[in-house]
Amino acid sequence: MAKIVECVPNFSEGRNPEVMEKIVDAFRGKPGVKLLDYSADKDHNRMVVTTAGEPEALKKAVIEAIGIAVAHIDLTKHEGQHPRMGAVDVVPFIPIKDMTMDEAVALSKEVAAEVAEKYALPVFLYEKAASKPERENLATVRKGEFEGLKEKMAKPEWQSDFGPKEPHATAGAVVIGARMPLVAYNVNLNTNDLAIADKIAKTVRHMGGGLRFCKAMGVELTDRGIVQVSMNLTDFTKTAIYRAHEMVRMEAQRWGVTVAGGEIVGLVPMQALVDTAEYYLGLENFSMKQVLENQLME
Amino acid sequence: MAKIVECVPNFSEGRNPEVMEKIVDAFRGKPGVKLLDYSADKDHNRMVVTTAGEPEALKKAVIEAIGIAVAHIDLTKHEGQHPRMGAVDVVPFIPIKDMTMDEAVALSKEVAAEVAEKYALPVFLYEKAASKPERENLATVRKGEFEGLKEKMAKPEWQSDFGPKEPHATAGAVVIGARMPLVAYNVNLNTNDLAIADKIAKTVRHMGGGLRFCKAMGVELTDRGIVQVSMNLTDFTKTAIYRAHEMVRMEAQRWGVTVAGGEIVGLVPMQALVDTAEYYLGLENFSMKQVLENQLME
Repeated sequence: MAKIVECVPNFSEGRNPEVMEKIVDAFRGKPGVKLLDYSADKDHNRMVVTTAGEPEALKKAVIEAIGIAVAHIDLTKHEGQHPRMGAVDVVPFIPIKDMTMDEAVALSKEVAAEVAEKYALPVFLYEKAASKPERENLATVRKGEFEGLKEKMAKPEWQSDFGPKEPHATAGAVVIGARMPLVAYNVNLNTNDLAIADKIAKTVRHMGGGLRFCKAMGVELTDRGIVQVSMNLTDFTKTAIYRAHEMVRMEAQRWGVTVAGGEIVGLVPMQALVDTAEYYLGLENFSMKQVLENQLME
Repeated sequence: MAKIVECVPNFSEGRNPEVMEKIVDAFRGKPGVKLLDYSADKDHNRMVVTTAGEPEALKKAVIEAIGIAVAHIDLTKHEGQHPRMGAVDVVPFIPIKDMTMDEAVALSKEVAAEVAEKYALPVFLYEKAASKPERENLATVRKGEFEGLKEKMAKPEWQSDFGPKEPHATAGAVVIGARMPLVAYNVNLNTNDLAIADKIAKTVRHMGGGLRFCKAMGVELTDRGIVQVSMNLTDFTKTAIYRAHEMVRMEAQRWGVTVAGGEIVGLVPMQALVDTAEYYLGLENFSMKQVLENQLME
């Protein structure tokens, strides 16, 4: 079966439609590349592109898009509410299908090496591609932003992973790496007591001693008069949707509250849903090749 | 999203590799058509082809394959253990993705009209495409087989739906129609008592007062010293996998037996697994468009 990787590059331009269209064009009409979504925010002055496809084809399109952004976005004149360090702020690669995390990391490093060379752009690797543990977290890498970048990169511990040892004059630096797809999963509770949702969120999330790849918080759905535990699962292959679901249900019992339903926000990899069906049906020896659509996707 | 339909034509040739390859070639190298599997049985003297693709492309390939079979298979010289009525015995169309049953029925009738005209072949419509309730069941339509076909078609109630009113001299007649995909789903039980599996099978299946689209029987897994309820779900959109699973579990409780696991044999449509995940997670407003791979399949 064909390998599929997703890429969600963030560009520091959310106001000039001409520049945004030029960047997005790099993902249009390319065999093996699919533009899934793009959205810009004027206050953030930032555009997020969601794209996926075959690794080699997507790599070329991403490199092209980064070149366009470097040529057209000037960070010395950029203002916006969202933190950013460069014309292309962050470029995560996400393994989707028949692709390991190691392969996504390797792909992200190929892109890093090529854009550093081609555009004289310093690159920092982050998340699973990080060269040191302290570079895994995007917020840490980006701290100081474009304005503080020259001073930051002068420190030995903040030398770039690829490319020049000081910022690009107008494009700053870019953060490239690989991570798992996020699954945004919410569990609704039959109560209007936000304190209960908050307490459950604190027990199921990693920070509170809960599941390793789970972030969670309580949220009020005022229209419906109920509350929910809103979760981000940052690695569904290790913290499965069903495990988060069952753990919320278990904790809710402690407060005499039942689960009203669940909700997946945005996209979810097929594997995450199949894992859930496998768990509840107790499937033995099930293979993704048995999914009819997978036979057709080659 | 692109419509996908599956077709599983059965040909009355399981011994002559040259003829079989000629038929299978009709499904090879055609844009929009994918050959998923083909297997022949010498005792049955029959070949089953599994193929899927875009409706128009698949329609053309199926019509071509039927022409090849009509030209090369002579039923006056055919013998085999499996009942058959023609060179091409039965041609079911199965809606897989973004396709309604009505559309699959319409497609099957287009194929029926065209092969009747092109090859002077009588066609009977069956299952969801049947012109009368008594033609829904394949076994009823096929009763009398090739050898009794002339006499059968002479009766007013067994006139063909398309094409000549008497059999093709060498190719007999063909049965064409549309049906839902079969899901073969087995539930293993923590007991070696076949009588318990049999009793449960009888309660969950349609015939015994159970689920409308469920066929079931008890089976012994002698190697593992356990038994299973082996089921065929003939319409998973109405008799869902999870419903069959929960019903077997419920009935097993009656005998003090627990469920050891489940097993899906062969291919399963993605929708059937997503329905299962939706049920157990209690998902609200989930759409198949949220499955990342569906965004990529266009």
